[in-house]
Parts: sequence; C-alpha cells; structure tokens
Amino acid sequence: MSTRKYEQRLRADAAEETRRRILAAVYERLCQAPTEPVSIEQVAKMAGVSRSTVYLVFGSRAGLFDALGDDLRGRGGFDRAADVTVETDARKGLSASIRASVPIFAEHREVLRVLYSMAQLDPDAVGGAVQRMADSRSAGMAWHARRLAEQDQLRPDVTVDEAAHLLWTLCGFETFDQLYTGRALPVDAVADLMVAIVERVVCA
Amino acid sequence: MSTRKYEQRLRADAAEETRRRILAAVYERLCQAPTEPVSIEQVAKMAGVSRSTVYLVFGSRAGLFDALGDDLRGRGGFDRAADVTVETDARKGLSASIRASVPIFAEHREVLRVLYSMAQLDPDAVGGAVQRMADSRSAGMAWHARRLAEQDQLRPDVTVDEAAHLLWTLCGFETFDQLYTGRALPVDAVADLMVAIVERVVCA
Repeated sequence: MSTRKYEQRLRADAAEETRRRILAAVYERLCQAPTEPVSIEQVAKMAGVSRSTVYLVFGSRAGLFDALGDDLRGRGGFDRAADVTVETDARKGLSASIRASVPIFAEHREVLRVLYSMAQLDPDAVGGAVQRMADSRSAGMAWHARRLAEQDQLRPDVTVDEAAHLLWTLCGFETFDQLYTGRALPVDAVADLMVAIVERVVCA
Repeated sequence: MSTRKYEQRLRADAAEETRRRILAAVYERLCQAPTEPVSIEQVAKMAGVSRSTVYLVFGSRAGLFDALGDDLRGRGGFDRAADVTVETDARKGLSASIRASVPIFAEHREVLRVLYSMAQLDPDAVGGAVQRMADSRSAGMAWHARRLAEQDQLRPDVTVDEAAHLLWTLCGFETFDQLYTGRALPVDAVADLMVAIVERVVCA
C-alpha cells in the first residue's frame, strides 16, 4: 500500500470510529433517559466530539436518527436478513423474515421501545426516523403480500391490499413487544407465535 | 324530598361535577402536551380547584389516572360492553367484545395513545394506570380463552394459555392503532380485520 493510500485508510478508519462513537452515545442516551428529549449537544459531549462534528457526520438531527435506525436493523441481522432474499418460496420467505427480525427486536428492545414510543408522542423528537422505518417496512410487506398472491399462497378471502395491512401490523415491533414484554414470553416462543399468527391470518 | 335529603343530593351533584371537571382537565392536558409529565398542580388549575381537592377526590396521583382509565372504558361503551356478557356463544361473545371496544379506542384514540406511550417510557408517569388496565384486560382475555375451550371453539393446535397470550396481544389498543393510525383504515374496516385476525388465529 502506498503511503498516500495508507493515510487515506487511516482517516477513513478514524471517521468510522467517530461515527460509531456518536451512534453508541445516542443509543446509550435513549436507554438512560427515555422520557427526555435528545439533545445533540449532550450526545456530542458523551461521544467526546463537538456539536458541529455530529452535524458534519450525519448532516442533520434527522440524519442521525436515520443512521441509528439503519444501524439497529443492520447490526443485529444483516446476514440473517440476507437469507430471506434467497428463499424463493413466498410463504417460507415470509416466515424466515419474521424469524430474522425477532432476535433483532429482542436484542435492541430497550432502545426500539423508546424510539417507537417517543415517535408516537412527538414524531420530530426522533427526527422522523420511525416514520421512515415504517415506510420502508410498508414497502417490504407489500412485496411479501404480492409474492404470496403470485404463488397462490394467499388465503382466498384476503386481498393483496388487506394482506399488506395485516402483515405490516402483525410482523412489526409492536406485536413483538406485546408478546415479549407484555406477556413475558421467551424470544423463541414469540417468533413461533408471530409466524403462526401470520400464516393463519394471510396464508392459504 | 325532605330538605336534608335535597341538600345531600345537591352536595353529591356538586362533588360529581368537580370530579368530572378534574377528569376533563387531565384528558385535555394529555392531548395538549403529550410529551410533558402531567403535574397535579396544573390539572387542578385547569379544573379551577385546589391541588388538595384533587387528592381529596382521587386519593392519589395513581387514583386520578385509574379514574381516567375507568372513565375512558365506561364513557364510550358501557352499554355496548354489557351486550357482550349476555352473549352465551364464546366465539360470538369474543367478536362482540372486539366490536364494542374498537369504537371506544377510536373515540379516545389521542388520549389513549398518550397514556400507552407515556406508560412505556415511564410507568409511573401515568400512575401505573396502564399496567392496571393491562392486568384487567388480561383477566378478561383468559376468560374468553377458557370459554372458547369449554365450547370446543378453540383451534386444536392452540392451548388455552396460548390463546390468552394471543387474544391479549391481538385485541388490544396497539393492534387497533397500528391498523387505524398506522394504516389509516376506517373504524369499521379495523373492527372487521381485528375480528378476522382473532377468529383465524384462535378459533376452530
């Protein structure tokens, strides 16, 4: 590696390390004081960087929360989620996707609970990140619904649109958390129940 | 009516009127500033009573939120809920109970959303009222689950305990709100979908 390339690499590593430190600070901050609005000032202080560095790295408050959302989805289950796309059977693909997301929900339950609840009280508090996560999930669920229909695996009394509404509602964090926290069930039992719910409600 | 009885009646009416004014103030306060902790001082001021009157009428902060919870359930659907208990068929009784609760959820969606989300961030913020509502709902759902089993209306692959977990999760405010707010569906469509979900997931 040339000296110049090596220096570029070092700078990239340092930037990634700063990025991770800031994300870890928001994560910690949300878990520690769930009822308080997140201040960028405070996050910067916890991460040992300046306020302007946070804006430089993430562009905006919304950008910071979006990055946290992406990070949460990616960290827990990138490889597991990848399995889903190679599954060509619509019904099995849907189950695999639920079984991939449940451990991510469980691993990051505390911070996800805060993000979702804060967003319900004040969407801007978490920079609209939860709304964008919901939109992206909505597209994913519509895709599953269409695929089930194409493979004749949709219940005859359920339309593709209804299936998209039902999948979005039944495969999400709220249903997970009702079973996991509300009923104190273990992760595996929650995954089994969520797969059973979805198969009974939308699958032929 | 004797003068003494008449005076007692007037005092009772005045007490009820004070009680209602305080409950209306908490309701309004929760809708107006969903992210702020509720101060009894402020509620008293809005209701035009002293702080000590609030404690005199409701006993405690927890008592105030419990009364609000009872009021929300009672106001919207006392008569409708009563219909459920006369229905002797377990499956029809369960559907009737869902169809009775959905309009109550919709009518008071805003304040229920705040109560549930606040409770998730800090259970004490709403005096533990949401936890007690959840406990009471839990008993109700266990009763429906047992009744379905007794009348051989439970799916053969679902135990009574599982049915109680599933009913608690699928008939509650969170599932309602995912469909009603998250998917922007009309009340009637939400009720139809919730009945369909529950019948497919737990009923034979």
